[in-house]
Amino acid sequence: MPHFQILLNTSPASEAAEPSMVLAAVLLSLVVIYFASKAGGEACARINLPPVLGELVGGVLVGVSAFSLLVFPEGGIEASQSLLMQFLQATAGLSPEAAPAVFATQSEVISVLAELGVIILLFEIGLESDLQELIKVGPQAAIVAIVGVVVPFAAGTAGLVFFFGIGTIPAIFAGAALTATSIGITAKVLAELGQLTTKEGQIIIGAAVLDDVLGIIVLAVVASLAKTGEVQIVNTIWLIVSAGTFLVGAIIVGRLLSPVFVNLVDGMKTRGQLLTVSIIFAFVLSYIATVIQLEAILGAFAAGLILAETSKRGELEEQVLPIADLFVPIFFVCVGAKTDLSVLNPAVPANREGLIIAAFLIVVAIAGKVVTGFTLIGKSDLNKLAIGVGMIPRGEVGLVFAGVGSASGALTESTEAAIIMMVILTTFVAPPFLRMVFKDPKTIAEPVQTPEKIQ
Amino acid sequence: MPHFQILLNTSPASEAAEPSMVLAAVLLSLVVIYFASKAGGEACARINLPPVLGELVGGVLVGVSAFSLLVFPEGGIEASQSLLMQFLQATAGLSPEAAPAVFATQSEVISVLAELGVIILLFEIGLESDLQELIKVGPQAAIVAIVGVVVPFAAGTAGLVFFFGIGTIPAIFAGAALTATSIGITAKVLAELGQLTTKEGQIIIGAAVLDDVLGIIVLAVVASLAKTGEVQIVNTIWLIVSAGTFLVGAIIVGRLLSPVFVNLVDGMKTRGQLLTVSIIFAFVLSYIATVIQLEAILGAFAAGLILAETSKRGELEEQVLPIADLFVPIFFVCVGAKTDLSVLNPAVPANREGLIIAAFLIVVAIAGKVVTGFTLIGKSDLNKLAIGVGMIPRGEVGLVFAGVGSASGALTESTEAAIIMMVILTTFVAPPFLRMVFKDPKTIAEPVQTPEKIQ
Repeated sequence: MPHFQILLNTSPASEAAEPSMVLAAVLLSLVVIYFASKAGGEACARINLPPVLGELVGGVLVGVSAFSLLVFPEGGIEASQSLLMQFLQATAGLSPEAAPAVFATQSEVISVLAELGVIILLFEIGLESDLQELIKVGPQAAIVAIVGVVVPFAAGTAGLVFFFGIGTIPAIFAGAALTATSIGITAKVLAELGQLTTKEGQIIIGAAVLDDVLGIIVLAVVASLAKTGEVQIVNTIWLIVSAGTFLVGAIIVGRLLSPVFVNLVDGMKTRGQLLTVSIIFAFVLSYIATVIQLEAILGAFAAGLILAETSKRGELEEQVLPIADLFVPIFFVCVGAKTDLSVLNPAVPANREGLIIAAFLIVVAIAGKVVTGFTLIGKSDLNKLAIGVGMIPRGEVGLVFAGVGSASGALTESTEAAIIMMVILTTFVAPPFLRMVFKDPKTIAEPVQTPEKIQ
Repeated sequence: MPHFQILLNTSPASEAAEPSMVLAAVLLSLVVIYFASKAGGEACARINLPPVLGELVGGVLVGVSAFSLLVFPEGGIEASQSLLMQFLQATAGLSPEAAPAVFATQSEVISVLAELGVIILLFEIGLESDLQELIKVGPQAAIVAIVGVVVPFAAGTAGLVFFFGIGTIPAIFAGAALTATSIGITAKVLAELGQLTTKEGQIIIGAAVLDDVLGIIVLAVVASLAKTGEVQIVNTIWLIVSAGTFLVGAIIVGRLLSPVFVNLVDGMKTRGQLLTVSIIFAFVLSYIATVIQLEAILGAFAAGLILAETSKRGELEEQVLPIADLFVPIFFVCVGAKTDLSVLNPAVPANREGLIIAAFLIVVAIAGKVVTGFTLIGKSDLNKLAIGVGMIPRGEVGLVFAGVGSASGALTESTEAAIIMMVILTTFVAPPFLRMVFKDPKTIAEPVQTPEKIQ
């Protein structure tokens, strides 16, 4: 509703943000996000780079590192530093006193929309994946995942201790931050290149999912080590058992319930029945995954995989497409917007120290993943380089390590900065690298409309 | 990301809600919303009632009046009263101390999603409307709108003063609350009945839009009258001029820019380009409408109308369909969930008094709108009763009058309760009434998939 407070001259309560201002702020944020995603995506598509890189760079441009249109309070940013809030004050009559509450609420809403974005992305990726194929490439994916966790972790930790004289605990933390692949970025680039349903694509997706689970376990172990000096065995075993039970259980129960799902949807008479029931299923699995301390995206991916096995797959894929078009860019633009490039500024002493450590971490991060493909001995028809390159981006998972390590006091400022630099670089180099290693002439430009429908 | 605070044993900061808990709460809320909307919608479809009534009733059942799964802090509800928060505490390890922050953030997010829902509904309604037809029925819509504002306002105010001895200012407030039709509910029911693109449907939509603008002007006048005892002429004129300029200007500028829009979309190479550019356009107009103190939904409706004139209409309608399926139910379920039926409890003294006033207001509210159709003299081919019935639901607009009136001290508790009862009843009776007056045998059950594609 319109803001009649102005007409009534009543003072708006400062503790709760005024609804119409929050709505206005969210609408503006979304306009900025969609504009950044399309401007960046189109620019990249024209120079033969994956559009998702453009969405990330578009995010950086509107975010904290450049124009500060889309900023978030996490990094100590205040409402007065948000260009968007200033614009609202200038155009919509937002008062400076009310700005902090509106800023906080708008940031929360956009952050949740971004998380729903990556959930919907993984649901879509699951829908487009092939469970039979995933199971078939399972052993190879498992090798890639395990090698891709062990090599960077061991090489990173050992290197930091021996070459840089860093203590064992911070070295383990930084080494652990090198383990988990960012499944979102890799999956999106594969989809854009039309490589999601190839054997290489399915190995990468399978390995990235296992990687995510392994990363969570590694983080739990390392975090408890940093906190108490010892590994909480019970917690760790609980995490491993629940993760395994969830992934296997969801698939088994889901396949048993598939006929019920199809009958239910066919028996319904109201609009949007297939989509709504599917989204309920995806969100329930996402919730369960969150509750057992896995990630929500793993639940969404499992839901997509299960529904892809039903006769409704084609219809559902078509309906999820526009929803993904609307939600997914929010995630990528927000990742870019939250990327604080000031960590690369060599004028700051901690950054200078960090820069050398970062150079080392980046080499290990890239080399440690690139080797994984080559451990698949005797599979000469596979593009082994592509598999390794697909595992490069670390994205938000590495940032969580940096955050948890820093909060627990285990990491120094310069090591934390080095981890952040490693995450930024691996995230931004992966899309062009992947584009290079999959040099199929058919995939020069992203086909408008339904790029994933290659199979 | 998962909640590693548990593993780290660090105390979570209580001022900001923990992101993974907020995400879990939002996921659960959406599951409840979609479940309520589909259960209610399907039940209504089976007994030949419009599904949207089922979504409203489903909302009531999960909301503050019944199971308290989906409740909002506005009515003084606390986190401990939310069944959803209790469920999160039981399953996800949410601590009672952290619950209030999670509850507040989740409520804000769901409220914004509901508002985006009605914005997308009006965008869809605009897309499915026909500007030429709307202009053709313009004079008739204007008569319906003006009569539908003047008659209930005059009859309501006069009746309250003469029959109930209520003071002039509160009587004017209650009378004003009878004016504005809830465009969302009417439009949704028309779409469900396949009557959106009939002449009657377009008159109702046109009149409801004008009604909304008139309602906002009436509210501004009445609110300033209640506050200062006099009408703020300058503000009122500004509102009238800006509303008129916006609606006419958006259409004119939009039509001029349509070829640019089509060229832009055709020249883009990335996925979802049509949808994204259209949504940017809709959100920009929604933002402008909010800024000039109109409602965001009017901007979205104007954007839909303009884009419906382009060659992209069909493709865009198809892509907006699943998005509407996902967003619109959030709005209707939230309307139901926020409806506090305790106002109907005759054990409360203010309600008993209010009940008699409410009975009067309801008669005026229904009769005052039903007559509007019959003022269209000499149009014997029109279903005049249907036009009047289409204007009955007051929905959220009436609640704003009750809220503003109560906040300014102009309304007594019993009069406020009476207004709320009137809003509840007109909202809930309109769908079945509309169903009855449009007794076209073709529209017995809502066709699955694309009910609006009748034209």
